[in-house]
Amino acid sequence: MNTYKAPLDDIRFLLEAFDYNGKIHGIPRFEEFDLDTAMDLLEGYANFCVEVLAPLNATGDKEGVKYNPEDHSVTTAPGFKEAYAQYAENGFTALPFPQEHGGIGAPVVVSTLGSEVLIASNKSFSMCPGLTAGLIDALEEHEVHSETYANANLLPKLISGEWAGTMCLTEPHCGTDLGLLKTKAEPYGDHFKLTGTKIWITFGEQDITENIIHLVLARLPDAPPGIRGISTFVVPKFLEDGSRNPVFCGGTDHKMGIHASPTCVMNFEDAEGWLVGEPHRGMKAMFTMMNAARLNVGIEGVALAEAAYQAALSFAKDRRQSRSLNPAKVDKNAAADNILVHPDVRRMLLECKSTNEGLRGLVAWIAMCYDLSHHATDEAEKEKASDLVALLTPIIKSFGSERGFDNISTAMQVMGGAGFTSDWPVEQFMRDERIAMIYEGTNHIQALDLCGRKLPMHGGRLMRVFAGEVTELIRECADIEELAPFVAALKTESKRLNATTMQMGAAAMADNEVIGAVASNYLNQFALVTLGFVWLKQLQALVGRDADDTLRKSKFQTARYYFELVLPEAEAYANKVAIGKAPMTDVDVDLL
Amino acid sequence: MNTYKAPLDDIRFLLEAFDYNGKIHGIPRFEEFDLDTAMDLLEGYANFCVEVLAPLNATGDKEGVKYNPEDHSVTTAPGFKEAYAQYAENGFTALPFPQEHGGIGAPVVVSTLGSEVLIASNKSFSMCPGLTAGLIDALEEHEVHSETYANANLLPKLISGEWAGTMCLTEPHCGTDLGLLKTKAEPYGDHFKLTGTKIWITFGEQDITENIIHLVLARLPDAPPGIRGISTFVVPKFLEDGSRNPVFCGGTDHKMGIHASPTCVMNFEDAEGWLVGEPHRGMKAMFTMMNAARLNVGIEGVALAEAAYQAALSFAKDRRQSRSLNPAKVDKNAAADNILVHPDVRRMLLECKSTNEGLRGLVAWIAMCYDLSHHATDEAEKEKASDLVALLTPIIKSFGSERGFDNISTAMQVMGGAGFTSDWPVEQFMRDERIAMIYEGTNHIQALDLCGRKLPMHGGRLMRVFAGEVTELIRECADIEELAPFVAALKTESKRLNATTMQMGAAAMADNEVIGAVASNYLNQFALVTLGFVWLKQLQALVGRDADDTLRKSKFQTARYYFELVLPEAEAYANKVAIGKAPMTDVDVDLL
Repeated sequence: MNTYKAPLDDIRFLLEAFDYNGKIHGIPRFEEFDLDTAMDLLEGYANFCVEVLAPLNATGDKEGVKYNPEDHSVTTAPGFKEAYAQYAENGFTALPFPQEHGGIGAPVVVSTLGSEVLIASNKSFSMCPGLTAGLIDALEEHEVHSETYANANLLPKLISGEWAGTMCLTEPHCGTDLGLLKTKAEPYGDHFKLTGTKIWITFGEQDITENIIHLVLARLPDAPPGIRGISTFVVPKFLEDGSRNPVFCGGTDHKMGIHASPTCVMNFEDAEGWLVGEPHRGMKAMFTMMNAARLNVGIEGVALAEAAYQAALSFAKDRRQSRSLNPAKVDKNAAADNILVHPDVRRMLLECKSTNEGLRGLVAWIAMCYDLSHHATDEAEKEKASDLVALLTPIIKSFGSERGFDNISTAMQVMGGAGFTSDWPVEQFMRDERIAMIYEGTNHIQALDLCGRKLPMHGGRLMRVFAGEVTELIRECADIEELAPFVAALKTESKRLNATTMQMGAAAMADNEVIGAVASNYLNQFALVTLGFVWLKQLQALVGRDADDTLRKSKFQTARYYFELVLPEAEAYANKVAIGKAPMTDVDVDLL
Repeated sequence: MNTYKAPLDDIRFLLEAFDYNGKIHGIPRFEEFDLDTAMDLLEGYANFCVEVLAPLNATGDKEGVKYNPEDHSVTTAPGFKEAYAQYAENGFTALPFPQEHGGIGAPVVVSTLGSEVLIASNKSFSMCPGLTAGLIDALEEHEVHSETYANANLLPKLISGEWAGTMCLTEPHCGTDLGLLKTKAEPYGDHFKLTGTKIWITFGEQDITENIIHLVLARLPDAPPGIRGISTFVVPKFLEDGSRNPVFCGGTDHKMGIHASPTCVMNFEDAEGWLVGEPHRGMKAMFTMMNAARLNVGIEGVALAEAAYQAALSFAKDRRQSRSLNPAKVDKNAAADNILVHPDVRRMLLECKSTNEGLRGLVAWIAMCYDLSHHATDEAEKEKASDLVALLTPIIKSFGSERGFDNISTAMQVMGGAGFTSDWPVEQFMRDERIAMIYEGTNHIQALDLCGRKLPMHGGRLMRVFAGEVTELIRECADIEELAPFVAALKTESKRLNATTMQMGAAAMADNEVIGAVASNYLNQFALVTLGFVWLKQLQALVGRDADDTLRKSKFQTARYYFELVLPEAEAYANKVAIGKAPMTDVDVDLL
């Protein structure tokens, strides 16, 4: 039983709250995309996702993908091939890409919020256009050294959806630590031949597009060791003359979730490849796609938690069980009360709703910053936006995936035994979501990126930009009576965050290992404050509306839960950060 | 790849720490079971579980159970039938039951700790003897009104494992709220005919025992409405003359986990049943089995989290990735360091280990109290033990299932992508464990039981008994220097718990709905303090050992993590309790 409706009203509200028309539509590149146009686009997209892709989600989970060892082929789940053709035909693979290569040219904030609906409808399906988008991002900024596979030839095929892309990074002995990778690229005329094995390759092999372009990390013969000796190549499944390039799928993994997304072992057996960008500078191309990809992983949590929340709410609305402890709420016309009378059921629903609407707001804000960081006409604005994207993307990826997963589990709890069965989609959402804490850099890697790279960057400028935004918002809201408790709570926790940041920075100067010990807890503290900021921003946009305006009432009651029961968790994380490294480092690992 | 080894050393240590020989072996009924004998028994049991049942776990998950609508039969997963026969033949179904009915007569603490190993080996399998044990518990205290099905006839068949038992409580419209149940029992000679539909019936139908005895809640024709009009019946699958009693499986549920445990819809179509205990007092028999069953659900979390932890540790020991941030730990002979050098990997492992060893200790302590509450010769000791069982069982069930699940997820995180694949058992453990937060009374029902029933019981006596135990332990440890930081932390948090308890009690006297709003957070606060108590008890038992004794070192470093990084979370829960009900009750549910 699927009950999902795309949260278009909330998306529209968020775009208004963050001044989409002023900030994004104001950029020449996006002049066609005012808010109404963007929402029309999203509505059409959402309808397609809900009507065509959502019905394939449960069958995709059940049937999975089939690997045929005879010819190394992969057959995707029933209906996927046809749905993908329709998806591409509708132009949905082209949404955020430049019009000069056949793209629609929509802002990234629009396509990212659209992704929420796509993922909520069918996460496995979403990974095929998702990975292709990553390749397109990389090719937009780095040139392929080839005539045949020049960017101008590849991009239209990828943007139209005729071809799909993959990212081939991980090898059996190296995931997080790509410096260890062994795949080799030997010169072959004007290009190269690649040999090696890659694992965890999403849609590495499939039957839904006529060609697949693999973006592959490998080493040239003269490569220095480690991460500074990695180059990037494009390796097509089929070469220009139609012959099969020897890059074969060696099997697909059996996984807890995303069964309809083939996770492939890919064997490169002297496969022909063309260099992308500079030799030995391959990690640059990878990092290009990382911010967008990590934003997308964060929205996966929002997407599936929203769908799970809606299922739980719909279940709760029908279910009657036990009596309210409040005599005034007892329904005398029925043998039991609706379970929504029980404060704990509301607690669980508000836990999901308040964190999820906060996260969606955070993604909307940062995706807008992403557009500004690339296309703002004012250089100072561009830099500020770029700083915020760099600083907050690891938080979106990590906290979005962690709370997203927790929220799905909480939604299941509302539903009792029903939520554990496949009669409802929630158990699949939970299985599909769990991997998000691991891929695109594990959540601890995000925390290290935040603490070890982003905080020290430009002498701490990124954090100053963020703190400035918070201070400015608090200043703007300071005299608005109805916002007083929210302002006070955010002030307390942002002050605490600044203190924790300084304390951690000082400790790390004396001993860098401290960062490894505290980064994960620090990220969560930071995330809670960030969501507090985003929530206050939403409330600010509602000031002045009638007290009985339903959106205003809904947002204020949800925010109240967030500020009273969720935001204060930041203190517990701060306390953990303050403890430092000793309980983890003064440990004899042989006794674990 | 399964890496599980039964944690027999820790079990032995815990039994010693809680003075098993003095307290349990000292009881006449258990005179055959001194610690060495108990450990021998557990060792044999553990070997069987690991050698015979664990290999059936992954196949059971993959193959699941098959329902045949033609004859309403259920075929269990490959090997289950044969393994069950061996299990029964070895006397394992008889472990904790009285010798007069063919049982082995072991203490419940021994069989409960044994259950951990059984569940870690094969949770689905464990549910068949587990449910049967619940029925046996009920029949030990409540008489069946029948000659044919007299307790003296049923018990030997159930204890020997020839027959199995089920618990038929839930109906489609009522789970938590059993007062709504509709199944009818009409008089039929000296017994009754039952009509109705039951759902979520674990092993309701199967092909592994020659008969199944259903314990069924139903209403007599003259029953008062609600929970006080429920009676209990035994309904055999096959009657004495070999004819089929019309109680048929109408289907099995498709679930996220425990695939090899059939979850059945059971249709009673004028099925013959015999009354158990007094008419309209059926909930008594149900509550008899509840404490033991809930203890067992708590140990499910410990079991699967232990197995997941071991898998993660084994993975971590082999895996090399990236460099230590501490130059002294860099392994210059390898291209990367073992991931155990990374403080965050240790943090995750210690998070699992510290909470799980705390929970195992808590279960061991309360299971010993369970034995004392039934068999202690001293009445005061019996009462005290009974109070502790009543008070702490909901905590074991709720916190054990919640942290157990969290810990499995954390173990998966240590393993990265590998943990998400079926090459390792962790993803199955996670799916198998999630239901534990729901069944045997959802975790919120446990919290209501704790706050609404157990705290006020006997004028607050149960809490005074627990607080007395904590105070006594703190007093005993007060002058032991090496325990000082642990004593101080426990003192802080137990003082805070007492304050929260009083504050909550006062608020609830004015407004009972407060309990519903805060109980879940209160239970978690209480649980953390309880684990602190159990940890200090473990450390106390190690005082005097050499500083380089490995068990001592291991326990102290694990406890340090618990006291510095986990126990203080109690404050955050206390803060949430202090907020009361308003953020949940001052809510317009139409705006959720």
